[in-house]
Amino acid sequence: MAKQYMSMRNLRFLLNEVFKVEELTKQPIYQDHSKETFDMMLDTAKQISDTLLHPIYEEMDKNKPELGDNIIHVHPQVRAIMKEFGDGGWIAAPEDYEHGGQKMPAVIYNSCNFIFHSANTAAASYPGLTTGAADLILTYGSDELKDAYLSKMYAGEWQGTMALTEPHAGSSLGDITTSAEPQEDGTYLIKGQKIFISAGDHDGVENVIHLMLAKIPGGPPGTKGISLFVVPKKRIENGELVPNDLQTAGFEAKMGMKGCPIAHLIMGDKGDCKGWLVGEPHNGIRYMFQMMNGARLSVGMMSTGLASAAYYASLEYAHERPQGRKVNVRDMTTSPSLIIEYADVKRMLLFQKSIVEGCLSFVTQCAYYADMIKASEGEEREKYQLLLDLLTPIAKSYPAEMSVQSTSAGVQVLGGAGYCADFPLQQFFRDTRINPIYEGTTGIQAMDLLGRKVPAKMGKSLMLYAAEINETIGQAKANDAIKPYAEKLEAVLQKFSETTMKLMGLAQSQDPEVFLADASLYLETAGIMSIAWQWLKQAVVVQEKLADTPQGEELNFYQGKMAALKYFYNYELPKTRGLIERLNSDDRLTLELDKAYLV
Amino acid sequence: MAKQYMSMRNLRFLLNEVFKVEELTKQPIYQDHSKETFDMMLDTAKQISDTLLHPIYEEMDKNKPELGDNIIHVHPQVRAIMKEFGDGGWIAAPEDYEHGGQKMPAVIYNSCNFIFHSANTAAASYPGLTTGAADLILTYGSDELKDAYLSKMYAGEWQGTMALTEPHAGSSLGDITTSAEPQEDGTYLIKGQKIFISAGDHDGVENVIHLMLAKIPGGPPGTKGISLFVVPKKRIENGELVPNDLQTAGFEAKMGMKGCPIAHLIMGDKGDCKGWLVGEPHNGIRYMFQMMNGARLSVGMMSTGLASAAYYASLEYAHERPQGRKVNVRDMTTSPSLIIEYADVKRMLLFQKSIVEGCLSFVTQCAYYADMIKASEGEEREKYQLLLDLLTPIAKSYPAEMSVQSTSAGVQVLGGAGYCADFPLQQFFRDTRINPIYEGTTGIQAMDLLGRKVPAKMGKSLMLYAAEINETIGQAKANDAIKPYAEKLEAVLQKFSETTMKLMGLAQSQDPEVFLADASLYLETAGIMSIAWQWLKQAVVVQEKLADTPQGEELNFYQGKMAALKYFYNYELPKTRGLIERLNSDDRLTLELDKAYLV
Repeated sequence: MAKQYMSMRNLRFLLNEVFKVEELTKQPIYQDHSKETFDMMLDTAKQISDTLLHPIYEEMDKNKPELGDNIIHVHPQVRAIMKEFGDGGWIAAPEDYEHGGQKMPAVIYNSCNFIFHSANTAAASYPGLTTGAADLILTYGSDELKDAYLSKMYAGEWQGTMALTEPHAGSSLGDITTSAEPQEDGTYLIKGQKIFISAGDHDGVENVIHLMLAKIPGGPPGTKGISLFVVPKKRIENGELVPNDLQTAGFEAKMGMKGCPIAHLIMGDKGDCKGWLVGEPHNGIRYMFQMMNGARLSVGMMSTGLASAAYYASLEYAHERPQGRKVNVRDMTTSPSLIIEYADVKRMLLFQKSIVEGCLSFVTQCAYYADMIKASEGEEREKYQLLLDLLTPIAKSYPAEMSVQSTSAGVQVLGGAGYCADFPLQQFFRDTRINPIYEGTTGIQAMDLLGRKVPAKMGKSLMLYAAEINETIGQAKANDAIKPYAEKLEAVLQKFSETTMKLMGLAQSQDPEVFLADASLYLETAGIMSIAWQWLKQAVVVQEKLADTPQGEELNFYQGKMAALKYFYNYELPKTRGLIERLNSDDRLTLELDKAYLV
Repeated sequence: MAKQYMSMRNLRFLLNEVFKVEELTKQPIYQDHSKETFDMMLDTAKQISDTLLHPIYEEMDKNKPELGDNIIHVHPQVRAIMKEFGDGGWIAAPEDYEHGGQKMPAVIYNSCNFIFHSANTAAASYPGLTTGAADLILTYGSDELKDAYLSKMYAGEWQGTMALTEPHAGSSLGDITTSAEPQEDGTYLIKGQKIFISAGDHDGVENVIHLMLAKIPGGPPGTKGISLFVVPKKRIENGELVPNDLQTAGFEAKMGMKGCPIAHLIMGDKGDCKGWLVGEPHNGIRYMFQMMNGARLSVGMMSTGLASAAYYASLEYAHERPQGRKVNVRDMTTSPSLIIEYADVKRMLLFQKSIVEGCLSFVTQCAYYADMIKASEGEEREKYQLLLDLLTPIAKSYPAEMSVQSTSAGVQVLGGAGYCADFPLQQFFRDTRINPIYEGTTGIQAMDLLGRKVPAKMGKSLMLYAAEINETIGQAKANDAIKPYAEKLEAVLQKFSETTMKLMGLAQSQDPEVFLADASLYLETAGIMSIAWQWLKQAVVVQEKLADTPQGEELNFYQGKMAALKYFYNYELPKTRGLIERLNSDDRLTLELDKAYLV
């Protein structure tokens, strides 16, 4: 097991030096916080991760869950983890005080979760999912629902889930068939099946509360006819928990994230599965998508966490592993070099570092916007909302896709050892492969970005985003050491804007399939540009710090930042050239392709 | 289990229409063959794959090998597979008649192995490794060694292995410490350890014959002091097999290729492990590398096989899976579309198809050069040898790296189902991740290409290669339908040549580390260009065929070829732009990076 899985120094750099989160405490809603309370939260998260989560990361993969009598038996420590997260107030942390929360700003909550997920992403999923589910009840549920469920969920005694997917309906929620028949007592009889429900059943808690999408018969077709329900595994009757006719048919064996099972649930087999409506009928998708937006940012953060753990594991190996000699060494009797001395190994390590620290910065940026939405009003609030809406599909997908490549580079640094179970690299690689699928595939996110977010409000979001990037470019141009990078980013932003204009022109003149055909490439381009922006933003701060002539480890830290910036601008940013070339092509290959040709 | 794992139609297209392998039978050494014998070999390979290999591909992954009493118990069918491959003459197939071989040309042998590996790469590894090991004995061994080992190995009764890697020496063979002490009887006492030995021990055979690298004490340091030995698990004494003090300490658990264990061997623990020298002392690396070159081409072929199986599995799913509706469909009461109707899914399928058929064509090209080396003399022979030497690191690495991405695209087509064990996609993805590591990592191949193959003989190899590409470009320019692609490739070849000149200039004026720093990017660029060449070469033939107005499935086949060509030129070839930009940069980031900055 690698010793390090994330860098607290880097996290503090982002929070304190780049995003200056202390400023948030000047906002009325965060006024009870201070740098000290933030630090305490981060330190506690690290300590929990070190003692409770990280030691069993590999064990949870090797000792897979097992299905018992209508219950999934998971790692025995899951119970202790849920209790610790409940007792420590982590599950309710983002909520208001009156619900047992700490009003923790999203930047801090996200940072703590980054620590948890880099330590053990499967374990951290249990409380994380519970927060998301409870938040839906808190935001849209009746007082009765809040009273019945929230305290148990926040205490970590009951698990929360998101129950969306059905065997025939994954990406297409409009086609779900789980039905909710209204009863005279105001409840609904639920009937149907759900699959791929993360933490959908396990023996680490007393009960599982599903936030479930279902259709009330007679409603409109598609997503407009979907309602949201609380469907518990055990319902409360006369103060007792009794079975709610919700069977666990099993769970899917998968290649990674084995420590957190995805359950197959059967509701209402005996006609006795009760659900409670959350909010208004037929508004389920709207409610769920509010949470999904948060979940999408979480996927970006989780992906970055796995990339972080892989980076430090491969870095540690590269620092310790002697192998071969540099090309300019002819004397074979000399001692072998450490592999970290080789240019190609440094390249793979810099690649990982630039992805980890670039993506973490970007996800933190999005969390910061989420905080500013809560803290502001009117036009300012709209600005932050538009920015967050625009960047959410990017913050979900780019870290997810790059985490696969980044952990793969970690495997490659180790060579054959990276492929073997003695080292965790192969597990990071397997675990993170779900991230481009979770919460909407990359293709779905791409359609959301280019088809919905960019054209909305006449392109206002993208104009706001360009202004944000240009502000950083302006700051960076004032410093000769980083001016060339500012100019590179400016050129890419210019090309990206021109490409967007061309695509928006197509959107107006042709069938919507045309401008969306290469949406995935547009998303990838936006991702590279966004991370380049975050690196420039970090570099502006780094230059200020370097002017103070730091020494020793502090100097190394800031010089490492400059190296990662240079890596990203020299090796990753040029990838936009080929992407933009394609995005501007008038070839309609994939649209015109007869599927019979795919043989 | 997906029904199709490779396309016989495509294989025949490459062999008969593009490479016109029947022409080979005009060469004296292949004169006993005919199109009919080739077809029979291919059909037999397909039939064995359908009945013996493919049905247990997933089973061999799920029922992992187990270590018994100094022997690894593998899937019970491995014995039947070794017997079938022995009885059918597959293990000896490429060898001369007098050794029980069939003088099978490399293009055919490689094609048959492509069928085997796309059906079940773990299973196909057992006989394949035996061929490689036996070939070393045949080529360099004494008559006594040939008599003692070959017939049993060719019969599939004894397994052959390549035993190179040691715990402290993977990529750096010069540092191995396994020793071979000469004895009075002409044998050597072997002492040491080997790890990662594929099929290094198992109960599907009576004996395991290791072609092992070791050092005779007193020899020169580094690779020049390495000799090659036959070290059997059981040695022959008085016509009996007796233990040779070669213990199986265990095997590594790994994330894929689980059906073929990699053994950890301990030789000479009791001072009684005998080895027999192959060829001359201190020539082991030269001998081994001749076989390694063949093995590197095999990795390219195996990678392509896994990409093929993933392509057809995801294609089958895309043809059958209804999900969602196209963006221009507003009526949610209509039936869902098959996912193959979506542009983004078609893009992912075309990506896979272009990789599978492009890489198979390139590996076949290399095998064709190998055949022409055997069939020609003098300058012509030198030409083919230089071409094969130059292209071998590319043919190993590009398919290996792209197979990871291509199988990942296959996973993505299925979404959550792709991540689950009910479908084989996750297994293809796990299995193929070893290929960029096998037989020298991508970084090692890159150093071989740019540091050795390109500068050799004053760049003659690359000039010959450019002539080959230009010949295809010339043919393609004669046809208006594909002329634009010829021009695109010509432009990339021009840029690639200029970049090479610049790097060779650096090689002469600066420390060798400088021009080699981004060798991996050079290799990637060469890979993209090489596959683009093969697509253009195929397209020249496709255009001839389309002129004959084929109908039905034949028309679909050729139109599919054109679509994949267009995909590769529109989406993959533009990636060379960013790569070439970086390769021409004077920034020395990775060379100048202080490792202390990597924090």
